[in-house]
Amino acid sequence: MSEFFEVVSPAEAISKITSHNDFPSLKTETLDTISCHNRITSESVTSNSDLPHFNRSSMDGYAIKSNDSSGVSSSSPNYIKVIEEIKMGYTPNEKLKNGECSRIFTGGMIPEGADSVIMEEDTEILNDDFIEIKKSLSVGENIIYKGEETKKNNLILSKGHKIRSQDIGSMLESGITSLKVYKKLIIGVLSSGDELLDPSEDLQPAKIRDINTYTISTLIKSIGHKVKNFPIMPDNFESQLEQAKKAFNECDILIFSAGSSISYRDTTSKVISNLGLPGILVHGVSVKPGKPTILAICDKKIIIGLPGNPVSASMIFTNIIRPIIYKTYNFEPLEPYILCKLNDDISSHTGRVDYVPVKLSVKDGISYAQPILGKSNLINTLVHSDGYITVPSEKRGLYKNSTVKVSNYE
Amino acid sequence: MSEFFEVVSPAEAISKITSHNDFPSLKTETLDTISCHNRITSESVTSNSDLPHFNRSSMDGYAIKSNDSSGVSSSSPNYIKVIEEIKMGYTPNEKLKNGECSRIFTGGMIPEGADSVIMEEDTEILNDDFIEIKKSLSVGENIIYKGEETKKNNLILSKGHKIRSQDIGSMLESGITSLKVYKKLIIGVLSSGDELLDPSEDLQPAKIRDINTYTISTLIKSIGHKVKNFPIMPDNFESQLEQAKKAFNECDILIFSAGSSISYRDTTSKVISNLGLPGILVHGVSVKPGKPTILAICDKKIIIGLPGNPVSASMIFTNIIRPIIYKTYNFEPLEPYILCKLNDDISSHTGRVDYVPVKLSVKDGISYAQPILGKSNLINTLVHSDGYITVPSEKRGLYKNSTVKVSNYE
Repeated sequence: MSEFFEVVSPAEAISKITSHNDFPSLKTETLDTISCHNRITSESVTSNSDLPHFNRSSMDGYAIKSNDSSGVSSSSPNYIKVIEEIKMGYTPNEKLKNGECSRIFTGGMIPEGADSVIMEEDTEILNDDFIEIKKSLSVGENIIYKGEETKKNNLILSKGHKIRSQDIGSMLESGITSLKVYKKLIIGVLSSGDELLDPSEDLQPAKIRDINTYTISTLIKSIGHKVKNFPIMPDNFESQLEQAKKAFNECDILIFSAGSSISYRDTTSKVISNLGLPGILVHGVSVKPGKPTILAICDKKIIIGLPGNPVSASMIFTNIIRPIIYKTYNFEPLEPYILCKLNDDISSHTGRVDYVPVKLSVKDGISYAQPILGKSNLINTLVHSDGYITVPSEKRGLYKNSTVKVSNYE
Repeated sequence: MSEFFEVVSPAEAISKITSHNDFPSLKTETLDTISCHNRITSESVTSNSDLPHFNRSSMDGYAIKSNDSSGVSSSSPNYIKVIEEIKMGYTPNEKLKNGECSRIFTGGMIPEGADSVIMEEDTEILNDDFIEIKKSLSVGENIIYKGEETKKNNLILSKGHKIRSQDIGSMLESGITSLKVYKKLIIGVLSSGDELLDPSEDLQPAKIRDINTYTISTLIKSIGHKVKNFPIMPDNFESQLEQAKKAFNECDILIFSAGSSISYRDTTSKVISNLGLPGILVHGVSVKPGKPTILAICDKKIIIGLPGNPVSASMIFTNIIRPIIYKTYNFEPLEPYILCKLNDDISSHTGRVDYVPVKLSVKDGISYAQPILGKSNLINTLVHSDGYITVPSEKRGLYKNSTVKVSNYE
């Protein structure tokens, strides 16, 4: 097939875009910390103070001088005087002298003179004034010292970090109520095809309902960006170019979903080539499904031509477009998986990466992956699967009973 | 410690709530399909028609009678007449006779008389009327038959299924533009403590900023539910009960985050006991961190008392509260992980499940997990970690260099 001037591997395809001089980088914005869940930090964040800012008890019990517990055990206890009950949120009134202690609760402020906290269960109340202590303590036991959580100017979050619930908590603990993060991208989705109906329309002879607009939009939102949808375009170069130019001005990235046939792809690549320089950098990727993928940079914007086949479009978005988008803000996600035993052989070709949907099951505590072989252009092969296996390009396939990594879709 | 009347394992804790007669189940609602991403189906969905509803080509090429290709090869080609170019989205005008073919594109409608599609690259154009075919085809080759995607009344989505991008695509392909899903829960978060400041306030002696309200709220939203926040409550039974009763009426589930000290926990458990029957079912779970966890059902609503320690609160939410919430709509999530080699020994106790935060690194293609040992009540131990390891209750620890599963936080 002469139309693919140079088919490249998925890794090369990604790198041809991300290593290009015109590869764009993301703008930043400042948001309330509590709105930053799943956003990516655009600068590192350091602590503005020592935390906690006072010595705290990590147990319910009594703040004591550890010397008073020296040599003490349950068979040889010591008796010390309770001089105060330290209320949560209040500073202690009394400073400890030898033989004295203060009642304290978890999180309470350690009084002057105390250097440890004996747990409630290692004590016995004798009367209103005295307790028996039954254990020897070392200095610092059951105390969280000032600055143990973080010291002033310590790094808390690095740049390019995806903000999780605990990160929000840590920022608020430090009183950092706003954060600088990368702006969401506005990604335009343009589907074309004279055979496409709106999903709300009744079926008509030789026509099918458009689904790529919605699967791709959902995938874009699931990685945290904004979608701009445009009306379905007819199979006509002039009207496609007109709409594409409008979309180009309104969006940061454009994704074309344009039928699987050669004539479609020719139109799409002609449209993309007219949007700016350097233009198309990748035309064809050695993967299955998803070979007829177009990647371009036009006037410092990333432009994608996805295969029309809905399974290809999803797999290419997940495995090629998503990493490219992450790279615009230097984000490197963790990619968890489920290890499974393969229920069946999978055949492939060397020199090509295959994405194979699988159904999972568990038997006697072992996870099994059953390849869903059907035709790769039917969306229901993805619907009936729980995840997918990536067959690397150097393999001719995978054997039954071999151990494989199953990736989640989202 | 007498306060924990019966400490139970995490699995028992979950089951004591989910297997109770008063365990609630979720209400349902009907939504536009395109708004259903990550929602859970409350009923199964079957196909309303055969799809595709016509025989389609899966390749660019020529629709032929396979008989015309019998015995054909590149050294012994056959010549057939092109009688039509079938336009995308239109029905063919011509029925094939022997020795005839129609130009067709991927997704095009197969004409009457054709039983296979020869790929463009296995043909040669001879002139305006004739092509040379150079390969023998079998019946059905490169055709997607009517009903191959789905047959009318076939199950597409089962009940309790989390809706992904491909599921939205499949529904829209079938013209199913609305779906019945489980309603989002309204979960109230009530933090208490005289030592708590709002995150926007300056630090004051013996006081700390409230963070659990925000970490727990973020975790609730990350599993798709709605949060209702209430003002920080003072350490006072009457005012807590008043606010709790108000919250109880406005929410489906209540989560209390109430200091770690015994006096706090006593107040929380007294408040919960006053909200309805049967009341507290679990008071203490054999985990570290997170032992002082309270689980209750009051008047058919789930009520949780989380430990005040922010690390415990997060770990208990993820490992105990989240599975309980999932069970209200019978959802069983996949739980992917990253397999790692452990960089250090981890010590634990039998009879207790430990959640240990780890930092990941990769060397020579192998992932390593470094336990973050510090004090378990500092939120930054979670901030500086990439995930966590679960040490099962039957183990006294895990050895350096053993292989462990690292779970993501969200």
